[in-house]
Amino acid sequence: MGQEKLQLLALGNVTIKDDFWSKYTKLVTKEIIPYQWEALNDRVEDAEPSHCIENFKVAAGLKEGTFHGFVFQDSDLAKWLEAVAYSLSYEPNEELEKLADEAIDLIGMAQEEDGYLNTHFTILMPDKKFCNLKEGHELYTSGHFMEAAVAYYKVTGKDKLLKIMEKNADLICEVFNRPRYKNAVPGHEEIELALVKMYEVTGKKAYLDMAKEFIDRRGTEPNYLVTEHEREDYVDIFRDPNPFNPLYSQCHKPVREQDTAEGHAVRAVYLYSAMADIAYEYQDKSLMDACEALYNNIVKKRMYITGGIGSSGAYERFTTDYDLPNDRNYAETCASIGLAMFTRRMAQITGDAKYIDTMERALINTVLSGIAMDGKSFFYVNPLEVWPNNCLDHTSMAHVKPVRQKWFGCACCPPNIARTLSSLGEYIWFKTSDSIWLNLFVAGAIEGEINGIPTRLEVKTKFPFDSNVEIKVTARESVKGRLYIRIPSYAKDPVLRIGGKDVKLKIEKGYGVIEETFKDQVINLSFDMPAHFVYANPEVRENVGKTAIVKGPLVYCLESIDNGENLSNIYVDTSKPLVEEYREDILGGVRTIKAKGKRLKASDWKGDDLYSREPVGLKDVDLTLVPYCNWGNRGSGEMMVWIKEC
Amino acid sequence: MGQEKLQLLALGNVTIKDDFWSKYTKLVTKEIIPYQWEALNDRVEDAEPSHCIENFKVAAGLKEGTFHGFVFQDSDLAKWLEAVAYSLSYEPNEELEKLADEAIDLIGMAQEEDGYLNTHFTILMPDKKFCNLKEGHELYTSGHFMEAAVAYYKVTGKDKLLKIMEKNADLICEVFNRPRYKNAVPGHEEIELALVKMYEVTGKKAYLDMAKEFIDRRGTEPNYLVTEHEREDYVDIFRDPNPFNPLYSQCHKPVREQDTAEGHAVRAVYLYSAMADIAYEYQDKSLMDACEALYNNIVKKRMYITGGIGSSGAYERFTTDYDLPNDRNYAETCASIGLAMFTRRMAQITGDAKYIDTMERALINTVLSGIAMDGKSFFYVNPLEVWPNNCLDHTSMAHVKPVRQKWFGCACCPPNIARTLSSLGEYIWFKTSDSIWLNLFVAGAIEGEINGIPTRLEVKTKFPFDSNVEIKVTARESVKGRLYIRIPSYAKDPVLRIGGKDVKLKIEKGYGVIEETFKDQVINLSFDMPAHFVYANPEVRENVGKTAIVKGPLVYCLESIDNGENLSNIYVDTSKPLVEEYREDILGGVRTIKAKGKRLKASDWKGDDLYSREPVGLKDVDLTLVPYCNWGNRGSGEMMVWIKEC
Repeated sequence: MGQEKLQLLALGNVTIKDDFWSKYTKLVTKEIIPYQWEALNDRVEDAEPSHCIENFKVAAGLKEGTFHGFVFQDSDLAKWLEAVAYSLSYEPNEELEKLADEAIDLIGMAQEEDGYLNTHFTILMPDKKFCNLKEGHELYTSGHFMEAAVAYYKVTGKDKLLKIMEKNADLICEVFNRPRYKNAVPGHEEIELALVKMYEVTGKKAYLDMAKEFIDRRGTEPNYLVTEHEREDYVDIFRDPNPFNPLYSQCHKPVREQDTAEGHAVRAVYLYSAMADIAYEYQDKSLMDACEALYNNIVKKRMYITGGIGSSGAYERFTTDYDLPNDRNYAETCASIGLAMFTRRMAQITGDAKYIDTMERALINTVLSGIAMDGKSFFYVNPLEVWPNNCLDHTSMAHVKPVRQKWFGCACCPPNIARTLSSLGEYIWFKTSDSIWLNLFVAGAIEGEINGIPTRLEVKTKFPFDSNVEIKVTARESVKGRLYIRIPSYAKDPVLRIGGKDVKLKIEKGYGVIEETFKDQVINLSFDMPAHFVYANPEVRENVGKTAIVKGPLVYCLESIDNGENLSNIYVDTSKPLVEEYREDILGGVRTIKAKGKRLKASDWKGDDLYSREPVGLKDVDLTLVPYCNWGNRGSGEMMVWIKEC
Repeated sequence: MGQEKLQLLALGNVTIKDDFWSKYTKLVTKEIIPYQWEALNDRVEDAEPSHCIENFKVAAGLKEGTFHGFVFQDSDLAKWLEAVAYSLSYEPNEELEKLADEAIDLIGMAQEEDGYLNTHFTILMPDKKFCNLKEGHELYTSGHFMEAAVAYYKVTGKDKLLKIMEKNADLICEVFNRPRYKNAVPGHEEIELALVKMYEVTGKKAYLDMAKEFIDRRGTEPNYLVTEHEREDYVDIFRDPNPFNPLYSQCHKPVREQDTAEGHAVRAVYLYSAMADIAYEYQDKSLMDACEALYNNIVKKRMYITGGIGSSGAYERFTTDYDLPNDRNYAETCASIGLAMFTRRMAQITGDAKYIDTMERALINTVLSGIAMDGKSFFYVNPLEVWPNNCLDHTSMAHVKPVRQKWFGCACCPPNIARTLSSLGEYIWFKTSDSIWLNLFVAGAIEGEINGIPTRLEVKTKFPFDSNVEIKVTARESVKGRLYIRIPSYAKDPVLRIGGKDVKLKIEKGYGVIEETFKDQVINLSFDMPAHFVYANPEVRENVGKTAIVKGPLVYCLESIDNGENLSNIYVDTSKPLVEEYREDILGGVRTIKAKGKRLKASDWKGDDLYSREPVGLKDVDLTLVPYCNWGNRGSGEMMVWIKEC
């Protein structure tokens, strides 16, 4: 804190042409956005209908009918619009923009006179607006429309949605300062970070103050969410037989006193993102300290090696330190998106690349695992070990799906992946007035500025399957400034060359700093990043006696299609070298890892008894691992990240 | 089949004076029955009120008020009465009998004119009787009262409750033969086995036929339970957001075609018990074949080593073959009681001791684990591995309790344990007209008969901590007959002596057969039963690389109170001998097992990172194991059955 916050680049100035990432980012415009539009309009066969657009038409009075879907169904359209906005920045598409404009017109028609916007309440319970903040998701939904509005305005310059959401934000600021709403906060955080974005674009301080107020109120007495159900106008929505647990919505204590990540994981990281925003805007050290404590708790005690968070399927939540079950966890795709949002903000504020290590871990493993390589199906839940046979409906494993699903009734993850991938440029680069920061090694280019001088940077790399990065700098005229290149914690023996000559690497908070007069330079960063074994802290009960195999930020896994059925019978020999092998023929081209191991000679088991005094022996096997993010793209089968060692 | 069914002994003729079992059976009269009476009357502080007696008073018109509790709340009183009946057989208690008589009077007053008996529906929804067989539990509750009525009549000779339940059974036979109830079956099985008991006492064939009809109907088309919610008079009770799963109530196919144990585990084994009864009564081979197939599926693919069944916490159900998670499972105490009921019947019909092996496994491990050694608290869920820190409310581990609970809102298990322990004599001995069968090695005596000649058998043993059994036979006059003594599958080198002389052991279906002219004999059975390691079938993914330690029927476990925190860091050395040590000082006197092992040197872990390239080493440790049935009797802590091997 204290220093200038690192800024995001306008997406229109970022180009991505990357062997690894473009496979996914291309899917957004080619598959996801068109597919999701069909889904929002209930035109996808064999998928649960969304009813989303239909709900807006009903609320707008264009159609007879009632509301269908979850209480937060509107937010799917918001996330779609946000993704569309980002995509237009790098792939203009008149037809798509027309669809978006029409959707925005529809949103305007569904908005009420006073600015209220939520089709569930407008249609179903117009007298129950803001009467269940715990479950109603009105502020959450508004928040997503605000993010969409800001994105659409920034990319297209069109302000219709922005005006709609200003009217909505004005209403929210007015309502939530009424005595009736003393200390009220939303059950699902999101509005806080959205109001900050609205402030950044409109300059209206009231939005920032309201965001801060929501942050300050949370977990303080009188605790609005805890006693909300006693209010006369309260309306039950979820019919949860269990009493409300304040941990679930992070309102168990004031946020500045929170030092463990608790409750619903998506809610938590959306809150922490806003806390970081507010900490910076108000230079609020106690809030920033809380953000750091929460970050440390996550990465040191509550995060999967894949950057997944949320150990419990029930309530999609954090549980307790070191509780990281591999097969029954939740690790929602959206939670890892939120973790990337939070860590990006922490990096922007502190200039510390350790946060980027976590952001990259979440994005490259769990967020990418959330989407099929054809862009047509999605995971909500991202376990580290799957045995399809026991992922049964009506059991405690029902939330775990061994194959990605087309479109969920509760469709938060697919559009969230789309908006994240289509705004990847905001994760790759940062800037200040006199510096440019490279976070993620993604091939492409930016049109940036250093001290006002237009400067183009071109990145060539085959990362993460190779660890050489070339950056070609072309400034319109000579300009003094700085280039920050992240040196990841997994980089061994990094070497920096400028114009082919080795230079001494000066590292500040995980970034290599190049202070130069830039004009035309070729900068090369290379480091070693061999595949290696990783062990979990002995406190992680689940992983004792096991090892995981990683290469740089990529976590690898066994799949039964490569290694045969019953992955649990496999042990990997950690004394033998890991061999990397690029395979053109699978998964669209991927670097696999070969390992030596053993396997139970299951056929030696005598008879068909379940228990016996006689164990079976082991036999040698060769193992093949593929990146975790690519698992489940070759049919249904077993998958395993943490492997027993021998 | 074909042969004569082995009969149970009248409990009044069985005495139990056993170092191991009497610890528990004594609790029934000393603690459980009085405590549960207080609980039924809502007089236990710090425990959820039962409302059970209160509901009866309201239904009887003795009190103003409404119904409280679960829809099956009445059954708690039934199970209490059944336990009281059994207890009076070996410990007459005028005061207790008076309480029971008064309770029976109350039941009579709560019964409706036509025989209907269920306070939930009488009070809350009198026009919705038998309108939700899936969830309503009316037949289940009636079944438990029938079991109580039969027990009370057999022990006390009083027939008031029996008459009440005959009237109720007559109503059920009439209603469920109406066209309206074509193919109707109860969602929760129990009535079927109860009607068989009613038939045995009253001789009314209609009861047996109705039981058979319920068995025959289940899973056939039209499938009543599957379409019940479409009926006009249907009333939703549980408000389960998920659609009904026919597996849950074992109505996914006709019972004779079922060969995998499915759905709610208690329901399943209650059904299978009745199937065995009906198979015998009607000499129905296809039904008996189904019983054997289901038994084999359970013991070869779906049963914990502790005799626990039900791998999923959600819906308390069976899942799939070899899916036996140790920490998140259900393994309800009642399900193991039901498994004991089913296997006892199978043994009675076939004379095969293999069923007794399973019965003993369930009773001695999971049923006893269900009750604290002071008789004051109970487990529903019996995991094989517990880490108290992650047994959190509002998570997917919420069903697992690290300490036994006083009395549950849903109180099926405690009274079920009470009725099972108080009828233990029915599990220990069988008889035919010319033979006596000893199933379980429990010290005590019976007053039996061989070919009409009164014959007393006295058993002396310190089983299961010792494997010598002495049986003293005293017949009033010399009589030819047979004595069957079970030779368990775990017995090594069994030696039989009669009058101190070794005799050749003739074994039939797991029983040693002694064909003799009995008068005054001392028979000694001894065998080796050292503690040893057990391995699970390699298909059990959860237990690969792990071993369990058992001694005879007793499964042992590690507890953190003996072995320190973090049991997951422990490996046991299977190449080192296991040493048994009797300890007077703990758990009321218990044989412990000492093992050699290793433990992660957790303190060598560098820093506080969650993941690292550097593993930590192992150090030698001595391990202490105690019987699984005794775990959790020394405060809250970790427990583990399946231990990693080194």
